[in-house]
Amino acid sequence: MDFFNVVSVQEARDRVMENFKNYEFEVEKVPLLECSNRILAEDIYSNIDVPEFNRSTVDGFAIKSKDSYGASESIPSLFNIVGEVHMGKVSEYHIESGQAIYVPTGGMIPEGADGVVMIEYTEKLDESNLMVYKSISFNENMILKGDDIKIGELALEKGTRITPEVMGVLAALGMNQVKVYGKPKFYIISTGDEIIDLDEKLELGKIRDINSYALYSLIIRLGGDVVGKNIVKDDYELLRTEVEKAVEVSDIVLISGGSSVGTRDYTNKVIDSFKGKGVFVHGISIKPGKPTIIGEGEGKLIFGLPGHPVSSIIVFKAVVESFIKGKMNIRDFSPKTKAIIDFNFPSASGKETYQMVKLKEKDGKVYAIPSFGKSGMITLLSNSDGYIVIKSFEEGVYKGEERDVFLL
Amino acid sequence: MDFFNVVSVQEARDRVMENFKNYEFEVEKVPLLECSNRILAEDIYSNIDVPEFNRSTVDGFAIKSKDSYGASESIPSLFNIVGEVHMGKVSEYHIESGQAIYVPTGGMIPEGADGVVMIEYTEKLDESNLMVYKSISFNENMILKGDDIKIGELALEKGTRITPEVMGVLAALGMNQVKVYGKPKFYIISTGDEIIDLDEKLELGKIRDINSYALYSLIIRLGGDVVGKNIVKDDYELLRTEVEKAVEVSDIVLISGGSSVGTRDYTNKVIDSFKGKGVFVHGISIKPGKPTIIGEGEGKLIFGLPGHPVSSIIVFKAVVESFIKGKMNIRDFSPKTKAIIDFNFPSASGKETYQMVKLKEKDGKVYAIPSFGKSGMITLLSNSDGYIVIKSFEEGVYKGEERDVFLL
Repeated sequence: MDFFNVVSVQEARDRVMENFKNYEFEVEKVPLLECSNRILAEDIYSNIDVPEFNRSTVDGFAIKSKDSYGASESIPSLFNIVGEVHMGKVSEYHIESGQAIYVPTGGMIPEGADGVVMIEYTEKLDESNLMVYKSISFNENMILKGDDIKIGELALEKGTRITPEVMGVLAALGMNQVKVYGKPKFYIISTGDEIIDLDEKLELGKIRDINSYALYSLIIRLGGDVVGKNIVKDDYELLRTEVEKAVEVSDIVLISGGSSVGTRDYTNKVIDSFKGKGVFVHGISIKPGKPTIIGEGEGKLIFGLPGHPVSSIIVFKAVVESFIKGKMNIRDFSPKTKAIIDFNFPSASGKETYQMVKLKEKDGKVYAIPSFGKSGMITLLSNSDGYIVIKSFEEGVYKGEERDVFLL
Repeated sequence: MDFFNVVSVQEARDRVMENFKNYEFEVEKVPLLECSNRILAEDIYSNIDVPEFNRSTVDGFAIKSKDSYGASESIPSLFNIVGEVHMGKVSEYHIESGQAIYVPTGGMIPEGADGVVMIEYTEKLDESNLMVYKSISFNENMILKGDDIKIGELALEKGTRITPEVMGVLAALGMNQVKVYGKPKFYIISTGDEIIDLDEKLELGKIRDINSYALYSLIIRLGGDVVGKNIVKDDYELLRTEVEKAVEVSDIVLISGGSSVGTRDYTNKVIDSFKGKGVFVHGISIKPGKPTIIGEGEGKLIFGLPGHPVSSIIVFKAVVESFIKGKMNIRDFSPKTKAIIDFNFPSASGKETYQMVKLKEKDGKVYAIPSFGKSGMITLLSNSDGYIVIKSFEEGVYKGEERDVFLL
């Protein structure tokens, strides 16, 4: 690694964006029910009013509201019941002064009416006479045509994640099919003579491939697809052959395991050996995660991630996720919470430091307690709830400070 | 609805748990890669040490640490290089005093060594002589055998959600297959003469089936499966036939749309018509969501949810999710954040009120701004980031208070 070429996290993100400014993720039309958690690839303008007619929000009687003015428990107003509105049917009535029509919750308000008095405040004297014990105001207990979404209105913006609530809006608009971004295709390569997969026998000196599995799960959660996954030995030719396969079928190639100097060197050479810009980030001033390299080959984005699971997860979150979010205009409110720092933690200035923490609630306040451990330890992460980011210009964090904790 | 039988949210949760205390969700063995976001159905004890041997966390030279005591930039210590450790290989060396062996990051520490000095603090004079310019302490730059996870240790508890970090731990333990809870099977029924599906023509008086789609997406996000989904007209026999189909194939039946008194009445009768305990919650003191009924038929949990999308989503989160989490021992730190309330909001005392809010960051503080709207409006939800819960004994919330905002 060229130590003089280490760049800040922001600079790494900027270089990725700059080098892939013309890269486009596929867009596909997907049936609404399969859209959970996908990202809208178009602005959605409504071509209907929602609702398309004035609806009652209660079970009650539709009337002209001014006819109820002055009505109270001691001095009720008298109305003439002229009928009943049925759910899903167009009401053929036109309300005149002094008339009332029964409307169920969600039913269509008949013409002429401008308010609904709840059934609890009425009393039927007989089939055609109604006492009303309460005055209602104009448009009370009604949702008006277009109240929810107006025709022509921008209902949902490109880049919106399809949460249950957003899916509700798409259903209201009658969208059978939705244009969403295709799932970004990832290819995961673990390198290292010591790395073995789950179905291999664990011999002394070997370790299980942890990174691929953690990265796989991060990709699924992000909404991506893993199109290939393999372990290769520490060998230039083997790695080059694998990357060649990878760039053909994926958008993003993640090579993990290159923490030792030798491995990093030939990962570098492999990336540079393809048609394209080659390696354009030679290290990031992030802790953990410094020995990260990023480049372009055959038009595809290639990451050389550190071998330690914690480091590779942090770099994935800091740079890979940020690239996808940027490209798809995703504007999630990221899952984070404010917490009071429960420790003094001086940090290596000049590096953006990601410190893992556990959250603890006490007396209605949330405290962040540091999880300490060596960066090769996977339990360091699985025992943490989130992390705080100490910027490179800060000298650390101090007990009592309130900080954002980004949830894992 | 029997107004005298309305119960608190907690009481509703308790009754569901009590009535289904013997209900068990299926447990299945699933390949690790398909386990993302699933819930562990067993405690996982480690049958190995992770790592299984002492490893170096840096590129450097393994030595006896006490041999380096006193070494500094001006007075280096001299070592004899006796070899090199290869990744994935067992080191056959035994370090004696004054000897050093090159070890790459992650490599196995040879016997006799108890520390690694980083390559940056060394200088090779020739193939067999090494200058060391820094003193290291006992076990410096090493992860010891079992440091991450010890043999026999409870590594992960039943009820743990398989996040990327947890998947990393499972991979480290060599778990090819994992026992997880089966996906809870839901059946969604929308009732109402006015409700039409996405592929039907929207005529005046009709409205789109919003609830089914929002519920569908909530279920997917929760980790459930939707095994059936249908719209039925407001008719006792039709609804009974559909529920009969539903209880056969699902764990939980969601009937949505019964907000008007008539619909609620026969949803009640339908639930009571099956073998079982019938309806045991006749309304919940929750706002919105009061006209919710809950019962048991043929051993299955049946919900009669309000017809308004916002209400049915709130009840799903407050009661359905809580049931699943309780049954599976899920102990997620729920996605919430502290925020400063930006409004005065008196609440109907005696009811647990769920107030939708938008979050806004200003000067490093997070403010919660109320989203107001009528409860039939789906945009009320899609324009919100989360909600605050005002307990039934509270009189409301006041500007400047700090509260938990539960993220949508």
